[in-house]
Amino acid sequence: MQEQLSQPGVLTFLPILYVAWADAILTPSEIEKIEERIKNESWLSELEKETLSSWLDPKNPPSPATLKEWLTVIKDNSDSINEGKRKSLADAGVEIANIGGDDNTRCSTPEACKALYEIEEALGVIGDESLDSLFDNEIANTPLTEISSFQEHELTKILDGDHADIIKKIKTILSDPTFSYVREVNKDTYREKVLEWCKHLANQGIGSLGYPKEFGGGGDIARYFTAMETLSYHDLSLVIKFGVQFGLFGMSIMLLGTKKHHRKYLEDAGSLKLPGCFAMTETGHGSNVRDIETTATFDPATNEFIIHTPNDDARKDYIGNAAKHGQKATVFAQLITKGQNYGVHAFVVSIRDNSGQTLPNIKIEDCGEKLGLNGVDNGRIWFDQVRIPAIDLLDQFASVDQNGNYTSPISSDSKRFFTMLGTLVGGRIGIPRAGLSAAKSALTIAIRYGNKRRQFGAAGKQETPLLDYKTHQRRLLPLLSNAFASHFALRYLTDRFLQQSEKDAREIEALAAGLKAWSTWNTSHTIQECREACGGKGYLAENRFAALKADTDIFTTFEGDNTVLMQLVAKSRLTDFKQEFHEINFFGIVKYIASQAATTILEKNPIATRRTDDEHLLDPEFHLAAFKYRERSILSSAARRLKNHLDEGMDSFEAFNQCQYHLVQLAFAYIEVVILEQFQLTLESMPEDDVKVAMVKVYNLFALSQIEKYKGWYLEADYIESAKSKAIRRLVNNLCQKVRFDAIGLVNAFDIPDQCLSAPIAVK
Amino acid sequence: MQEQLSQPGVLTFLPILYVAWADAILTPSEIEKIEERIKNESWLSELEKETLSSWLDPKNPPSPATLKEWLTVIKDNSDSINEGKRKSLADAGVEIANIGGDDNTRCSTPEACKALYEIEEALGVIGDESLDSLFDNEIANTPLTEISSFQEHELTKILDGDHADIIKKIKTILSDPTFSYVREVNKDTYREKVLEWCKHLANQGIGSLGYPKEFGGGGDIARYFTAMETLSYHDLSLVIKFGVQFGLFGMSIMLLGTKKHHRKYLEDAGSLKLPGCFAMTETGHGSNVRDIETTATFDPATNEFIIHTPNDDARKDYIGNAAKHGQKATVFAQLITKGQNYGVHAFVVSIRDNSGQTLPNIKIEDCGEKLGLNGVDNGRIWFDQVRIPAIDLLDQFASVDQNGNYTSPISSDSKRFFTMLGTLVGGRIGIPRAGLSAAKSALTIAIRYGNKRRQFGAAGKQETPLLDYKTHQRRLLPLLSNAFASHFALRYLTDRFLQQSEKDAREIEALAAGLKAWSTWNTSHTIQECREACGGKGYLAENRFAALKADTDIFTTFEGDNTVLMQLVAKSRLTDFKQEFHEINFFGIVKYIASQAATTILEKNPIATRRTDDEHLLDPEFHLAAFKYRERSILSSAARRLKNHLDEGMDSFEAFNQCQYHLVQLAFAYIEVVILEQFQLTLESMPEDDVKVAMVKVYNLFALSQIEKYKGWYLEADYIESAKSKAIRRLVNNLCQKVRFDAIGLVNAFDIPDQCLSAPIAVK
Repeated sequence: MQEQLSQPGVLTFLPILYVAWADAILTPSEIEKIEERIKNESWLSELEKETLSSWLDPKNPPSPATLKEWLTVIKDNSDSINEGKRKSLADAGVEIANIGGDDNTRCSTPEACKALYEIEEALGVIGDESLDSLFDNEIANTPLTEISSFQEHELTKILDGDHADIIKKIKTILSDPTFSYVREVNKDTYREKVLEWCKHLANQGIGSLGYPKEFGGGGDIARYFTAMETLSYHDLSLVIKFGVQFGLFGMSIMLLGTKKHHRKYLEDAGSLKLPGCFAMTETGHGSNVRDIETTATFDPATNEFIIHTPNDDARKDYIGNAAKHGQKATVFAQLITKGQNYGVHAFVVSIRDNSGQTLPNIKIEDCGEKLGLNGVDNGRIWFDQVRIPAIDLLDQFASVDQNGNYTSPISSDSKRFFTMLGTLVGGRIGIPRAGLSAAKSALTIAIRYGNKRRQFGAAGKQETPLLDYKTHQRRLLPLLSNAFASHFALRYLTDRFLQQSEKDAREIEALAAGLKAWSTWNTSHTIQECREACGGKGYLAENRFAALKADTDIFTTFEGDNTVLMQLVAKSRLTDFKQEFHEINFFGIVKYIASQAATTILEKNPIATRRTDDEHLLDPEFHLAAFKYRERSILSSAARRLKNHLDEGMDSFEAFNQCQYHLVQLAFAYIEVVILEQFQLTLESMPEDDVKVAMVKVYNLFALSQIEKYKGWYLEADYIESAKSKAIRRLVNNLCQKVRFDAIGLVNAFDIPDQCLSAPIAVK
Repeated sequence: MQEQLSQPGVLTFLPILYVAWADAILTPSEIEKIEERIKNESWLSELEKETLSSWLDPKNPPSPATLKEWLTVIKDNSDSINEGKRKSLADAGVEIANIGGDDNTRCSTPEACKALYEIEEALGVIGDESLDSLFDNEIANTPLTEISSFQEHELTKILDGDHADIIKKIKTILSDPTFSYVREVNKDTYREKVLEWCKHLANQGIGSLGYPKEFGGGGDIARYFTAMETLSYHDLSLVIKFGVQFGLFGMSIMLLGTKKHHRKYLEDAGSLKLPGCFAMTETGHGSNVRDIETTATFDPATNEFIIHTPNDDARKDYIGNAAKHGQKATVFAQLITKGQNYGVHAFVVSIRDNSGQTLPNIKIEDCGEKLGLNGVDNGRIWFDQVRIPAIDLLDQFASVDQNGNYTSPISSDSKRFFTMLGTLVGGRIGIPRAGLSAAKSALTIAIRYGNKRRQFGAAGKQETPLLDYKTHQRRLLPLLSNAFASHFALRYLTDRFLQQSEKDAREIEALAAGLKAWSTWNTSHTIQECREACGGKGYLAENRFAALKADTDIFTTFEGDNTVLMQLVAKSRLTDFKQEFHEINFFGIVKYIASQAATTILEKNPIATRRTDDEHLLDPEFHLAAFKYRERSILSSAARRLKNHLDEGMDSFEAFNQCQYHLVQLAFAYIEVVILEQFQLTLESMPEDDVKVAMVKVYNLFALSQIEKYKGWYLEADYIESAKSKAIRRLVNNLCQKVRFDAIGLVNAFDIPDQCLSAPIAVK
């Protein structure tokens, strides 16, 4: 391309061809006319004619990237256009061609000019008026940065994958006036509005997407997750209420119960005829579910369980749907029968009648105003010897017969507990995907604003758009790359979760825990930076950051506190590590040592640690090796430290606590390997086109800004040397600049409906 | 101390002495009795008698640190106490002493026991009941971590400095029921409440603290700043409304106007009889004040200025007090007279009459709901050829006579502009100090909760308090050290600002810009971590994080966007750097090179970069050298890079943009040197007591966690080697553990009134 654009005769035609293609007005007869003309012009070289002809093929029109490049050349080389002095496309072409050497003068001969004027006339674009308006709109006013180097909808297709249909359906629903945002209403009105929205979605069959078809559902949990993700472009109270009702409540019955429960409850849960809660968390035991204190004691006399809150710390707390709308609740309690405690089990308990009256022996309190999500009615529940029929024990993993005999296919209490909880991992997929949508909304708003908003600038020139400032790029664009990285990783997690078997359950649990933590922290951070990047405008409620920030803030806490989850990830990695040695013993150790040595020889040699060339720094193999080296190193040093503490006689709780900071680093390193791998695999699966070219830049920005973030660690480990570390910083700056030119296209590809974005600074 | 506690006879007395001193019940006759008895006991060695006697001096009672140490020894060595089996203090003493060698058996002879029982009896603390309750409250239930190693109120004294009186007065006012928080009210009600609060403060003379006494003020700007800081323990809408009225509005008249304006406006501004606005910011020019477009054109025919908004981008935006209450506004506009634009000047303009009706030719619009600070009525103002008397030009720096002749003591428009703006730097002091108070509130709530809240733990033991987890310490305690660091630095900034002369005006402007940015970013980050550290409890509005987060979020934007301010700091440093060379020329360069070389020899040698001993790592000289080295290095490399760009012909705007990321790093490095220095100077000025011992730990945590944060940079610069970097990480972990034991005392020393904190998880 560069070569073709150095041919003066080709340059002469550039404005005409740009205008023709930009408006897509080239008819077959017009093309024929131009081709005929070009063929006969003696002032054009054969090579030039060939190039021009190749640009006139209607089956193979210039790509957006090509058009963009033409525009750059036109703007860079035509003073008259920039100063509003142009008369015609032909004049502009001559002016552009005349820049440079003597050879170019042939483009301004009367003969050449005549040809150009006639072509311009033939295309019907002559005349001051049409030209002015064309240039004004297309060239003078449109920043180059609003024209992507790729087809935005092609990227959208890749992001949406197989679920484009359900995504489109939900976007259409959300764009209905019924779903207009409510603002400045009180908590009660807001809660009713959110309930109403949920009912609309239930009516459209969105709520029951994940339930079996025989109970009125859509039979596709994958689509349920996608629905939740798409809904998250809208109000997040809606999403959480939706998730509580159809996910936590309905799916706990689906996954922990058996057919009889499904028949009894699922259809009404999916239609929202039966509003329900998920009552697991207790005041005294936020993250420590195993030690909850609510009891469910079997009474053989009546074949009932007695649900009871033994003390105030054991009240159920923060239960969504409880303060106002819930009629049933899946209640988690210690199952006691024949004087024996078999650990935590789930029961379906009525808490209100269908007129909304709280039932006897149940006390419910409103959690009151929260930092965000005030459209969700969180409450506290106390049970005072509440009797429920024995059949309402959700008995997928254990049952109690009428004599009070307990049976379970899983004999260990501990294993049964983790199996039960494992089935509920879905919540750890829905939340980060919801958070990611919120982050995408924030990025779309901030990047569009940054592209338009101008402040300061060079003396005598127009002020500079915020997004042209290096600090602005540095703030937003690595986070944009994180959003894509997160998208592919969460899609992978969903697939793994849906295909899980007993064999990989623990791995997937760790994966979900880690990606939930990584992704929701990233969401909080992203929305914060975006708010700040929009300055005072970002502080106005109408521009959405108020809601996005407040509503997602709790995502780092619920469905498992992120710090606790990261320790779970680390422990899972340590178990893998231990097994590796246990199972294959001496041979395993030898192999491990050999693999470590191999890493050292291949990577940690004076040449590799000092390489600063782009070829190396942009090599996905280098990225993956670096990410993996970090994970492996932290894993083995953490294992060593733990072992030392245990050998010294420290109890294991304290030993883990001593290494806790270390373990959280391990979890980050592990999860980042997964994310990087998924980004790489996604790129490998993409066709070689403009979209891929653009996404490779985004990928590189992700990979290198992660390595840069940990440069302290890499330098400390002698994995990279100073010069390499500095080269990475420079490259991140360059990549920011490159991604900046596609930034608008990249956020447009998220394809968030205007009604959802709603922010006046981001939509017209 | 350690030595004394190895004497068995001394240990025997420890429980008795602890209880006696902990309750402060030792009367002279009791002391005499004990002393007499000790003197005659032959089973005690002379050394033991001496020690015991030294602990009975009423003029020199044991310090809190000593008491705490005693308690640790008692709890660590007495099984019976920990298991609730003790009968008496004497028994406990014997038990403690009996741990260890043969020599200790003498402490359990009948003779020794008799003596101990009699002393116990003499002190009137005998008997199971009194003992049980004493141990229950004091030892069994009180975590060691709630007993500071220092006198909290002594630290409060140091924090409050000379202003303890006004701080106390304001805390008393805020604890009045009138100032109870309002929640879940609509915007309009909230705004009226905030206005009412401001009136109460005005009535108490708090609003006019900074105005000259002759106009009804307190004549002390320093106290005004302290008032704002103290008010910030309360509702932040109140603080901002207060700041707009008494600071921005009143002080702009005070500082930009002259006597005639003071006479006309100040008293009514201070009493809030005249509610006013500060109308500087325009929609189109958020940070770029110099280019605002509102005009003030002099009309000699009527001796008036005509205030006009020429286009929609030039409307005044985000103006506090404008939407509802303001009657006057200090309006910033381009002064035009005789067809000549003299740049931005300030004018007093009426916008509403005193019944609250908007005046003709003025349009005011409500900014509507915001992310936070919804008790402040921000609005937009348009002026349509509004005429004001010429006398309402605030003419401290320029005046226009009745013929339209412009005069100013400062001939350069640019210098005049910056001088005017410089006088308004006060806003950049009030905001970070307000933000710091909010951060202190958040830390107090999170640390108290972390000390109480237990989750998980070693098998069979009580669950562990959150603050005993290493990750929890790592999250909160470096931020606690930042709060102290910020406190001393902002106090220094205030002093410098109040004593400023023309000579150091630019330095102070940069200092204010940098500390405002550093401190408000730190506030946002601190409150976020504290919210997360409190989990779901932190998300309930009643626990205050909702308000603290939302209300302070804009602090990083207003009074100058932080990123813009950091560039101002960097440019100021570059100017210094340039002057250093310019002024002293060749000699300067030689000197500079010599000083750089000296650094290299002293610090960057293989011994210094590898030192990992505590003596070195905890040496304030090492810290200061490291901070300064960083600043100096970034400064000279930024200067070099800029110069290269300029030499290549880049225009200066673009050259600065190319280095922008670099320049922000420079600003951070510079500000952190200032902060470190002020922390060090504060410590140097403190008496050698327990408070200082505690604060040295906090200081070390601050200094080393900053160096750790930049370890990538230091390693890249070869300033430290891997081993040293790792040693610093370990030391930060240790310091977190040490500071953890004083954490409750440290936040108690902030001395925030319970009514202000209000969070149920933090106050009883």
